[in-house]
Amino acid sequence: MDTAYILNTFFALFAMTLIIFMVPGFAMLEAGLVRTKNVSAVLMTNTMIYSVASMAFLLVGYSLAFGGWESSSMSIWAAFLFQMAFVGKTVNIMSGGVSERTRIFPLTLFTIVMAAIIYPVVVNLTWGANWLKGTWLDISAMHDLAGSTVIHSTGAWALLAAILIIGPRKGRYKNGKVRVIPASNIPLVTLGAFLLWIGWFGFNGGSVSSISSKEAADSVALTIMNTNTAGLAGAIMAMIVLYIRYRKLDITMILNGALGGLVAITAGADLFNIYEPILIGAVGALLVMLAVPFFDRLQIDDPVGALSVHLINGIWGTLAVALFADVSLWAQIKGILVVAIFAFASSYAVIYLIDRFVPFRATDDEQLEGLDYVECGMESYPEFKQSI
Amino acid sequence: MDTAYILNTFFALFAMTLIIFMVPGFAMLEAGLVRTKNVSAVLMTNTMIYSVASMAFLLVGYSLAFGGWESSSMSIWAAFLFQMAFVGKTVNIMSGGVSERTRIFPLTLFTIVMAAIIYPVVVNLTWGANWLKGTWLDISAMHDLAGSTVIHSTGAWALLAAILIIGPRKGRYKNGKVRVIPASNIPLVTLGAFLLWIGWFGFNGGSVSSISSKEAADSVALTIMNTNTAGLAGAIMAMIVLYIRYRKLDITMILNGALGGLVAITAGADLFNIYEPILIGAVGALLVMLAVPFFDRLQIDDPVGALSVHLINGIWGTLAVALFADVSLWAQIKGILVVAIFAFASSYAVIYLIDRFVPFRATDDEQLEGLDYVECGMESYPEFKQSI
Amino acid sequence: MDTAYILNTFFALFAMTLIIFMVPGFAMLEAGLVRTKNVSAVLMTNTMIYSVASMAFLLVGYSLAFGGWESSSMSIWAAFLFQMAFVGKTVNIMSGGVSERTRIFPLTLFTIVMAAIIYPVVVNLTWGANWLKGTWLDISAMHDLAGSTVIHSTGAWALLAAILIIGPRKGRYKNGKVRVIPASNIPLVTLGAFLLWIGWFGFNGGSVSSISSKEAADSVALTIMNTNTAGLAGAIMAMIVLYIRYRKLDITMILNGALGGLVAITAGADLFNIYEPILIGAVGALLVMLAVPFFDRLQIDDPVGALSVHLINGIWGTLAVALFADVSLWAQIKGILVVAIFAFASSYAVIYLIDRFVPFRATDDEQLEGLDYVECGMESYPEFKQSI
Repeated sequence: MDTAYILNTFFALFAMTLIIFMVPGFAMLEAGLVRTKNVSAVLMTNTMIYSVASMAFLLVGYSLAFGGWESSSMSIWAAFLFQMAFVGKTVNIMSGGVSERTRIFPLTLFTIVMAAIIYPVVVNLTWGANWLKGTWLDISAMHDLAGSTVIHSTGAWALLAAILIIGPRKGRYKNGKVRVIPASNIPLVTLGAFLLWIGWFGFNGGSVSSISSKEAADSVALTIMNTNTAGLAGAIMAMIVLYIRYRKLDITMILNGALGGLVAITAGADLFNIYEPILIGAVGALLVMLAVPFFDRLQIDDPVGALSVHLINGIWGTLAVALFADVSLWAQIKGILVVAIFAFASSYAVIYLIDRFVPFRATDDEQLEGLDYVECGMESYPEFKQSI
Repeated sequence: MDTAYILNTFFALFAMTLIIFMVPGFAMLEAGLVRTKNVSAVLMTNTMIYSVASMAFLLVGYSLAFGGWESSSMSIWAAFLFQMAFVGKTVNIMSGGVSERTRIFPLTLFTIVMAAIIYPVVVNLTWGANWLKGTWLDISAMHDLAGSTVIHSTGAWALLAAILIIGPRKGRYKNGKVRVIPASNIPLVTLGAFLLWIGWFGFNGGSVSSISSKEAADSVALTIMNTNTAGLAGAIMAMIVLYIRYRKLDITMILNGALGGLVAITAGADLFNIYEPILIGAVGALLVMLAVPFFDRLQIDDPVGALSVHLINGIWGTLAVALFADVSLWAQIKGILVVAIFAFASSYAVIYLIDRFVPFRATDDEQLEGLDYVECGMESYPEFKQSI
Repeated sequence: MDTAYILNTFFALFAMTLIIFMVPGFAMLEAGLVRTKNVSAVLMTNTMIYSVASMAFLLVGYSLAFGGWESSSMSIWAAFLFQMAFVGKTVNIMSGGVSERTRIFPLTLFTIVMAAIIYPVVVNLTWGANWLKGTWLDISAMHDLAGSTVIHSTGAWALLAAILIIGPRKGRYKNGKVRVIPASNIPLVTLGAFLLWIGWFGFNGGSVSSISSKEAADSVALTIMNTNTAGLAGAIMAMIVLYIRYRKLDITMILNGALGGLVAITAGADLFNIYEPILIGAVGALLVMLAVPFFDRLQIDDPVGALSVHLINGIWGTLAVALFADVSLWAQIKGILVVAIFAFASSYAVIYLIDRFVPFRATDDEQLEGLDYVECGMESYPEFKQSI
């Protein structure tokens, strides 16, 4: 009765569903982190990304990445859904970091290119059909279970390109000083972060891509366990550092610490023993906490800390596989570099090109008014009196 | 070891769980769409509906619909839970559309009748024991996988009956003009819509009702993929129309477009190829956008757009099966009509009768004060200063 | 192909995931129930608990409870994750009840002890390795499927100890009168309660701990069905009582009624027929409604009603098993008593000891200012004007 096929299909659907919880996850996280005048725009952007990126992946991206519609170990439709659940995440990472000053229409154009071409090419070279097989640029030897590099770095390189072109939010930096812009709704931030955390179980667990043997089932369970442990360690490390330095426990930073740990474990969660993720996640959180002020010093304005979480830890996570498991460090570095160059250069070119015709950056007046009004013609909380 | 039985049971429990996420889904969606003075009342109504409708279905409705407690392909308790997860949805559709002016006590009485009798009769005639088998009224030939007609239209016909009896919200129409009443909390609307979207995977995927063969697993995965695709297409179509017409992307309308697509795909998600849902969902969103102003012109006041989403697309979705798959158009039309007549007439009669003794409509003063105070004796956000 | 092993592993991962939804569930519930000035502190506390408790359980607690890392019927990592998902709940129950006046640092210390020692010892004696096997204190004959006593009472006894040491919130009781402190965000309360409800399916269903036979699958499905039914009955009973007494349906009390029913069914959901949970849940809600004013009369200040929900119904649920199923009443009572004495005494001692060095209680000024500022250095909704 094809039990293996059924189990793998069912498990892929389960994992896919968990990942889809990341759609409201990202939406709530970002809606909580931005100012109330930009909340609807952020929610709309997240809805656009899921819709447009998934559709572009269905129509173009999937066959580019995998060279066709085939699968033997599970239903091809389940295989597609699982992969489709990933694609929007790269744009989520990018859009979050340029929120509060970016127009939706050019962002939609970039979303199409990212989901139809840029990301599928990265997948092609790593998990997919591998056009560069056997050439000196072949990076398929990189071990990147669920995308520390393939997803998180790719999205974050696109973000870096976008920030360089779009610039910081109006009023973020003044005379070389950073103006603090507080998050507007902390429960939403927390809800979003935990939905992401849960989604990560599907992301990483599902990436084992089989549950139809005892070994596969063990690998899936270990992967989910290690994923979770790195998140725990990230949160704890952030708490410790915050407590020592400030005696104040900023919950948004703790959650970013956890997310940093989760990104870091994503490349190798299947290869570690149950204690190594503690170190990997803790270092991940530490890197987030160092990177946030570092990017601000460079006046690289990233309202949700996406570069710190996804770029720095995308790299760290991919390297960590070589440090803790029997994987070639050079394969990891080569993968990181090739993806970095391709993702950054292609994103930069595409964003630059779009920007020439349809500027990404909202004007100062529009930013002052808020993107909810400008982009959506509405308010997010029209009945609550605003104090800012 | 009865692997098929176990797999079907486990899968039904998985699908059921996803559907239960629609309980907070509907609650958040509606709590975000109404004014702050009616938020607790809406949340309480949603809690009442899940509790009372499910209980009525357990005590009466299930055996009415299916003629007894039996199942062979999976645990009867899993089969029950999956069906039970549906029943409250019909009342959710109805209660959402009459929110901000409807008292809870008569609504509770109607919930009992709907979940114990009206909806079970509809299920009996379509998916269930089929009392009318072989008669000229037999509609079991209608293909309605997960309830475009059985659930969505049934609930929406009840809603239409209710609106005709209860009337519009105080102040909604003045001198033939529509007064815009903005949604009070957009993040909640978005969160709710995505929880519904995810729940739909369980709704439609679980309705295939078996995952214990290769073909069944393929069918489940295809169904979920097509469900998702129609939602994507609905959101994208709404975005395109909004952008062309207004250059403003109202996120609530985009989400309603997605929901319209999801309703439309519900009847035949298992029968389409992977591209047809794009058309079905896009048309669904278009219909929502045409229907919303249409109902307002008729002064049919529906604060959450439930008629546009569930009635219009319940019909469209059921017809679409015949247009794109090898299904008799007449069987679909007959099913739509019989369910329409029965659901509307019986709901109208019951609501009318209840209304004679316990009026559904809150008085103008009560509406002004807000149902939170009137029905719950509390405020939803007591510490936030209100600007309206 | 080890189908049983795979199915049990997959099902444990599914159940675990549902339980993890209780992390945002508790966080949202409590963030909605406290005043806005304490919301971030509550969210941070919930994040701390999940992180620290799970980590302590990984490093120490699990092997204490189960005597080692072994499993035969499923992957040990899945077995660990499922058990790990429980541990934070005991501290959640405790922390919720002392919120709005408790400092995070001593609470963190207690979390470590609870998750590393106190809770694992309770598990050891009931579901685990059982150090007291064969002695007169052996309580392993108690039937407590998913922890009415092991989880809910344990957490609630710790809470009672904490309240006795920490005292009520500043201003809660004045001249023997209770000052009502309204919940600040009702949608969050509702969202949280339904996430908990869904999590309970994993809690109780997963505790059957096997799905790899027809009988096991039936038992899992029946357990989830009964769990849900008790929640329904709890909500309905609360509605009836509120309607009769006040004609006002306080949604937070209805949700607490449902949660009371869910706690009550947790000990024996696998042993009842499908109607008994109606009675058990309804009594559970009734007990909550009697207990809330009772504890207030004793000036035991519990802002979220945790003692009423978890202690009273933890006891009721454990007793109900003996009343409705073929289980020794004495075994149940003995289990309740031994756990009560151990959990209360050890928690009291540990909290007392910690409190000597690091006081749990925030000063009156700190409480006035709000813990968000004191503990997190931030506001939860900085842009919304506060009316209180």
